[in-house]
Amino acid sequence: MRQKNRYFCGVDFGGTAAKVGIVDEEGQLFGTERLEISAGQSYQDIFGTVAHYIRRRCRELEVQVTAIGIGSPGFIDREEGRVLQGSENLPAFKNRSLIKCLKEDFRLPVFADNDANCAAAGELKFGIGAGYDSFVMITLGAGIGGALVLEGRVFRGTRGLAGEIGHLCLDALGPFCTCGSRGCFEQYASSWAIERSYREKVAKRGSGDSGDPEQLRSISTEMVFRRAQAGDRWAGQVVRETARHIARVFGNLVNIFNPEACIIGGGISAAGEVLLQPVQDYIADFAWPLPLQGVRIHTAALQNDAGVLGAAAQCLERLGG
Amino acid sequence: MRQKNRYFCGVDFGGTAAKVGIVDEEGQLFGTERLEISAGQSYQDIFGTVAHYIRRRCRELEVQVTAIGIGSPGFIDREEGRVLQGSENLPAFKNRSLIKCLKEDFRLPVFADNDANCAAAGELKFGIGAGYDSFVMITLGAGIGGALVLEGRVFRGTRGLAGEIGHLCLDALGPFCTCGSRGCFEQYASSWAIERSYREKVAKRGSGDSGDPEQLRSISTEMVFRRAQAGDRWAGQVVRETARHIARVFGNLVNIFNPEACIIGGGISAAGEVLLQPVQDYIADFAWPLPLQGVRIHTAALQNDAGVLGAAAQCLERLGG
Repeated sequence: MRQKNRYFCGVDFGGTAAKVGIVDEEGQLFGTERLEISAGQSYQDIFGTVAHYIRRRCRELEVQVTAIGIGSPGFIDREEGRVLQGSENLPAFKNRSLIKCLKEDFRLPVFADNDANCAAAGELKFGIGAGYDSFVMITLGAGIGGALVLEGRVFRGTRGLAGEIGHLCLDALGPFCTCGSRGCFEQYASSWAIERSYREKVAKRGSGDSGDPEQLRSISTEMVFRRAQAGDRWAGQVVRETARHIARVFGNLVNIFNPEACIIGGGISAAGEVLLQPVQDYIADFAWPLPLQGVRIHTAALQNDAGVLGAAAQCLERLGG
Repeated sequence: MRQKNRYFCGVDFGGTAAKVGIVDEEGQLFGTERLEISAGQSYQDIFGTVAHYIRRRCRELEVQVTAIGIGSPGFIDREEGRVLQGSENLPAFKNRSLIKCLKEDFRLPVFADNDANCAAAGELKFGIGAGYDSFVMITLGAGIGGALVLEGRVFRGTRGLAGEIGHLCLDALGPFCTCGSRGCFEQYASSWAIERSYREKVAKRGSGDSGDPEQLRSISTEMVFRRAQAGDRWAGQVVRETARHIARVFGNLVNIFNPEACIIGGGISAAGEVLLQPVQDYIADFAWPLPLQGVRIHTAALQNDAGVLGAAAQCLERLGG
């Protein structure tokens, strides 16, 4: 029997803040709080602040939480919740367990996972993934995260490190990536890659209609998409090229996994149709027609609150229900 | 309780023959028979011959089989055992069920799967994969097949079409592939790709020590590897380049699945160390160090009989035990 009205706490760690919120099992989010993390803050301090907020918020809402879910960038050891690698922006977490402190404090199940896995758990439980048993998800932002949902569960691999779709090699002689390999997908479709591509395209053509060089230097990914929609030719090119890289990765994963859907999440997914349409148009260039049949391509349903909802959703996914 | 001394029949369809054999649950194979298939032979005829042999062989061995497993090239519908696509060499099978005939005839469980999935089931149950819970397998031959073993089972995807690792795109502007996409892995590491690469390398350099042009035209993959071992420079180059492509694909799949091992099967795997060593040397260029830690790279243990053993092993895998 599924217990009714369970509540979960989602904690989404980013480089400079933890977003925390209480979520019910239908995915209703009762507000989120952004707790700033300063560079020098200690592990104890950070989790003290988080615990304090959770207690206060539970009192205000008059609820008890069943479990706490934590999402963080980096490779996370699932058993101990340690950040094994990739938490450069959160040095206090290096080789520390993300779950130990809250577990001892609250005496509740506490889970931690990579933020892209959490995003996939969020879509699976509360978002566009709810209708699917298997899907591939990428989260596009400053980096590219990835996750696989197979047979109704987030697939984590032997040691919980699976899903690094951002590090699929698109060009063995491409630019070196943060992971040490060359030509990773992340080098071609992350926000800074999109911005650089647009800047360089315009620079090679003279600024023309695309604004003065000063403005170009501070161009954001959002602006590139907006300009593409407004008919800027070079922005349009960049968006189509980005979409083609995404389509290539999705097409490859369709060949390898035979999933039901592919989902684009992360900040860049807010671009919506202007990105989605060319991905849908290009994917047939990269997948066998047969496994591609019926595969749906979506942008994520959970937008701004994807981090907290996903962190909480992993509790539901791991506890079952 | 596991039933002792179960026997299975493995039927491995190739372009011109069916290899059939009886296998016990420890993977002992009691001989194989090669039953020729002529181009015009009908579906009924082919399965009649196969059924006749199975009956005769069971009588000779004085055993009864528990189930029959069939391996075939192409995309196989798991439920009905139909060949959906990719059986160009066996036109009699097009859109026909591979299991129906034998199922009605023997009144036993009959399973059918893609030959690369069977190869993985074979390694999992009887071969080098027996020590692992998760591995990635590629079968290198005239084409490149692939399979994923996840959590102790061959992963088949939503509609049983998963594992097309041969169609991972290595170059979006590369040569067109049989699947309709461009620059697939199969275009760079299948037997004819290896042979062509060697022929073209030598041709561009003048035949030199590498033999006369007449001989070159009929060079086999096996000869390329043999020449590489004997110190032929251009053959050595071809082998290293092939190994680098394989390492790239394995490295990418390590990032995405976090498996325990990568296995090279198919006819080309007989090359052994001369291929394996450079794959091991190159893989670090393509994988995150952390998920790569401890990943073992092997050639398949089941060699000549991999097809029949794999086809039979799928019975064990699907029935459990």
